[in-house]
Amino acid sequence: MKIGILGTGVVGRTLGTKLVSLGHAVTMGSRSESNKAAAAWAKAAGKGAATGTFAAAAKAGEVVLNCTSGQHALEAVALAGSDNLNGKILVDVSNPLDFSHGMPPTLTVCNTDSLAEQIQRAFPGIRVVKALNTVNSAVMVDPSLVPGEHELFLCGNERAAKAKVAELLGELGWTRDRLVDLGDITAARATEMLLPFWARAMTKFGHANFNFHLAVGGPA
Amino acid sequence: MKIGILGTGVVGRTLGTKLVSLGHAVTMGSRSESNKAAAAWAKAAGKGAATGTFAAAAKAGEVVLNCTSGQHALEAVALAGSDNLNGKILVDVSNPLDFSHGMPPTLTVCNTDSLAEQIQRAFPGIRVVKALNTVNSAVMVDPSLVPGEHELFLCGNERAAKAKVAELLGELGWTRDRLVDLGDITAARATEMLLPFWARAMTKFGHANFNFHLAVGGPA
Repeated sequence: MKIGILGTGVVGRTLGTKLVSLGHAVTMGSRSESNKAAAAWAKAAGKGAATGTFAAAAKAGEVVLNCTSGQHALEAVALAGSDNLNGKILVDVSNPLDFSHGMPPTLTVCNTDSLAEQIQRAFPGIRVVKALNTVNSAVMVDPSLVPGEHELFLCGNERAAKAKVAELLGELGWTRDRLVDLGDITAARATEMLLPFWARAMTKFGHANFNFHLAVGGPA
Repeated sequence: MKIGILGTGVVGRTLGTKLVSLGHAVTMGSRSESNKAAAAWAKAAGKGAATGTFAAAAKAGEVVLNCTSGQHALEAVALAGSDNLNGKILVDVSNPLDFSHGMPPTLTVCNTDSLAEQIQRAFPGIRVVKALNTVNSAVMVDPSLVPGEHELFLCGNERAAKAKVAELLGELGWTRDRLVDLGDITAARATEMLLPFWARAMTKFGHANFNFHLAVGGPA
């Protein structure tokens, strides 16, 4: 499949490399056409890896992954262009983290709104699915780094879009039993608000090879 | 041990009944000395159960559990009285939930502050430990309602206070392997912010017999 990636950070590069290795044609987009991190990534990732502007990546992808930092996400999607994105699935991997006050980070939006909802509201023609934002990039592409049962949480307004994203996640190793659909895009509030906990846990464990598991008993 | 409970809701009553059954002397406190819910609870719980004002419960308890609703927590602790609470452990079980906009609830404080921190700041002589706020009351007193590995998260500024609370939690079935110390009281932001997720999960599953497990791999 043709996949666009917005963002050249470790999340975009890690997902991009894995997707190229799975045979997908990945275009990594950034603010400038001559981004050095993107060029180095494409060279290392090999055949199937291309680079360009946000708009080029959005145009090239049948599915687009937003892997920008949360503070630049809305601007990046705007630069990618609704003309290039309308009708397509945008997997929002980003989190609205604010590190300006040190660790642990706070959120720039939460509680009564979320970054994914902001993107969905600003670009109503895009099929936004929130996913992958609750694990580290290494775990995103290799769930086996964390032992036992643990899950990814999806949400979005459209069932068919979530089903398509579930397929793609399956290729990364996230089998159906590891996916929990939390409902419409407003559930992104809940998963983005896991990040303060996630950051505390990372500090405690000294690494990021962990994930949440929902242990579920029978009804009362 | 002598235990005070602030609040006569299902959380206070459930914890109170279990603690009485374990042989503790529990005083349930409420706004008025003649609270009907408290009286009915004491009658059902039997020997070891007493009732009184918030102040009476705080005075009677060596350890005090705040089981009021989050919106009334600060007022309840004020009515309990710092004279009755200073130097004692207050286990803050409450969450700053706002149901006024319907389900799922939002939080009245989050991100850069938490209810537990507000209590600790307002009453610096109290040894506040945040715990038990991430599970339903039935699960609080019976972790076996949820299968497999799952944990409670503790935080507070004083190690000795957390160790004492860990002992009490052990009596409820929360063995040491099920307790995760997240650090000082500011970590209450992280655990209180799990509640929006918790509420979505409860809606999804149709019951509250679930809990979080942190699946942890080795360092990278």
